[in-house]
Amino acid sequence: MASMNHHYTELQDSYLFRTIDQKVAEYKEANPDADLLKLGIGDVTLPLPAACIEAMHAAVDEMAVKETFHGYPAEVGAGFFREAVQAYYAKRGVELEPGEIFNSSGAKDDLGDILDIFSRGMNALVLEPAYPAYVDANVISGNNIVHLPSSAADDFAPYPDANVSADIVYICSPNNPTGATYTREKLEAWVAWAQEKQAVIIFDAAYESFIQDETIPHSIYEIEGAKECAIEVCSLSKTAGFTGTRVGYTIVPMELEREGLSLNALWVRNRTTKTNGISYVLARAAAAALSPKGKAQCMENIAVYKQNAQVLMDALDSVGVWYSGGKNAPYVWMQCPGGLTSWEFFDKLLNEEQVIGTPGSGFGKCGEGYFRLTAFNTPEKTAEAAKRLARVCASLQ
Amino acid sequence: MASMNHHYTELQDSYLFRTIDQKVAEYKEANPDADLLKLGIGDVTLPLPAACIEAMHAAVDEMAVKETFHGYPAEVGAGFFREAVQAYYAKRGVELEPGEIFNSSGAKDDLGDILDIFSRGMNALVLEPAYPAYVDANVISGNNIVHLPSSAADDFAPYPDANVSADIVYICSPNNPTGATYTREKLEAWVAWAQEKQAVIIFDAAYESFIQDETIPHSIYEIEGAKECAIEVCSLSKTAGFTGTRVGYTIVPMELEREGLSLNALWVRNRTTKTNGISYVLARAAAAALSPKGKAQCMENIAVYKQNAQVLMDALDSVGVWYSGGKNAPYVWMQCPGGLTSWEFFDKLLNEEQVIGTPGSGFGKCGEGYFRLTAFNTPEKTAEAAKRLARVCASLQ
Repeated sequence: MASMNHHYTELQDSYLFRTIDQKVAEYKEANPDADLLKLGIGDVTLPLPAACIEAMHAAVDEMAVKETFHGYPAEVGAGFFREAVQAYYAKRGVELEPGEIFNSSGAKDDLGDILDIFSRGMNALVLEPAYPAYVDANVISGNNIVHLPSSAADDFAPYPDANVSADIVYICSPNNPTGATYTREKLEAWVAWAQEKQAVIIFDAAYESFIQDETIPHSIYEIEGAKECAIEVCSLSKTAGFTGTRVGYTIVPMELEREGLSLNALWVRNRTTKTNGISYVLARAAAAALSPKGKAQCMENIAVYKQNAQVLMDALDSVGVWYSGGKNAPYVWMQCPGGLTSWEFFDKLLNEEQVIGTPGSGFGKCGEGYFRLTAFNTPEKTAEAAKRLARVCASLQ
Repeated sequence: MASMNHHYTELQDSYLFRTIDQKVAEYKEANPDADLLKLGIGDVTLPLPAACIEAMHAAVDEMAVKETFHGYPAEVGAGFFREAVQAYYAKRGVELEPGEIFNSSGAKDDLGDILDIFSRGMNALVLEPAYPAYVDANVISGNNIVHLPSSAADDFAPYPDANVSADIVYICSPNNPTGATYTREKLEAWVAWAQEKQAVIIFDAAYESFIQDETIPHSIYEIEGAKECAIEVCSLSKTAGFTGTRVGYTIVPMELEREGLSLNALWVRNRTTKTNGISYVLARAAAAALSPKGKAQCMENIAVYKQNAQVLMDALDSVGVWYSGGKNAPYVWMQCPGGLTSWEFFDKLLNEEQVIGTPGSGFGKCGEGYFRLTAFNTPEKTAEAAKRLARVCASLQ
């Protein structure tokens, strides 16, 4: 008699973005001609950089000819891919060995799968507001979630609490959903906490390319000692527009050991047992995105999104609404005006101005009364959405 | 204090194919000019079908332009992908709903990840000889392995043992490594066993395209009642030469329930929590491979591999060595001549004739004394390897 994993039944009934989709679908059905503007899910809109397109066409051509055809890839990452990531980190002074670099199909995949090398039933510390998949993946694994709320008082980037212990902790900087960043000083405090508690930091660096403040670390490994206590999970989804292309990378340092086991060796064994690596064509696209030429093209796209964020920030400034993020992140995290709850503001913005955002309460209880806007729409639509947003905010004051 | 998953330490020290690689590397170092012929790991050598190449170029072009760019895919499979799989199954009379079809990055990925919807510590029945990843993925999950050996007496495709209970069972047909196939009658017996025991069959159909005997089922769903007790995992690696392209599909029927839970719903929730689907470019390549035109091109490549298998079978026939497989599979599973063990024959074949195969004992204890040859090398190299193989066999008789 097959017995199932009943932890699935402990998950909240529906994923945040599915609830939004349902509400939007209902609105559309009732108002078929509405001019909806989406500042909701964090999906990119600009096409892939030319360097990636060229690399993929060339790789596809290789796959068409017997002499240059590629079969099974290296399961943890092709040499050229690992070298591209290594060179990318070296530019910021972080030295990695190729063996510390693993390819992935995106950050979401590895954020969930990495739990497989830890024991079940452990304590996972989640700094909230947080990306819902952190909590959900741990619930499925039967782990205990320890919530650490943050607020405007700590700029939504809290220091560790010395009284709190956990086996792992998720830190996302620049943060989804708040756009907050962790300063060097705060990250040093977290590394010290992890070393003292012998915990492991899962550092989600998916938005690192949006950092413009030069004092903010892009990688946890810019902090001394981090190689002994942190895994870094990164993605090209937001850096290079790879949301529909699906490549990321995960760093598991050689120095990282717990209970006498090398986490790198565990992850190698996990990957070689449970995957056959990523597509040759995609690995080439990723290496191109990380090359100096590709990265320059990526930054042109990011500049467009950052200008969108500025337009949203200007609109909120014009009506005196508090927000964080926007400067070093594609997200603007605003306080709902007029004391509205997150879902009340969602409904008002949708029904009155046909603008779709994301209720902050979907990212944890402490997100109640906040609202996330993304900078990934087109400049034209973002400008129009910013106008409507300011109008709603003004009406609530 | 992070506590780790210590089940990794229960895994056999090194993966079969890594040991082979080490032995080959040592031989090469000692004999740098040796003309090595590989009939070892099951990697394809022919380029991708033209239909796949065309589809990928077109998809890459779509990703280059804002108007046709694709962001986040449907996490469990794009509509066009699911329709292509649906149509592929319909040709053999198997009706699937789109919601029962999930995209994957290959069979290996889903064969491991699917365990996540079952409880830990369950009993997994493995019909041996078997693909090593079945055992390894279950060891990592802390499951108990129940071994069911097979032999030449049951054509390496055993009937169920009514006295054996298990939560899940792996059935691979055509089989890796033995090339054996399960007849309709044998699969009916396994479906009846699973229904009686309320177990779940994990049916690995990765080699279905090599079946030429029209009486052999390609899918477990050709058997009545299978939708109530089986998950099917399939791959385009061997069908379309996708070992380096990485796309597969997994079927979880709507009818499949255990302990009051829908396994389809659990798998949807798993995938939407832990993945963001597969690359648009790869999904297009896969849909092209499954289209009538693409499939015809795939079958031209498979015909080349099947002719290679015939050459290997002819060589073994010429020296009177027993084997299974070859006819409906890309694998020929031979008995080691002269009473040699699997590794003794491996060493002899490598050292005396520079031919590399895979020791049968690497697939389970009952594989001792057998040896796997693959049909995936070029016709020229396969013909030369067959000659050398016959020579070694003759010398042992």
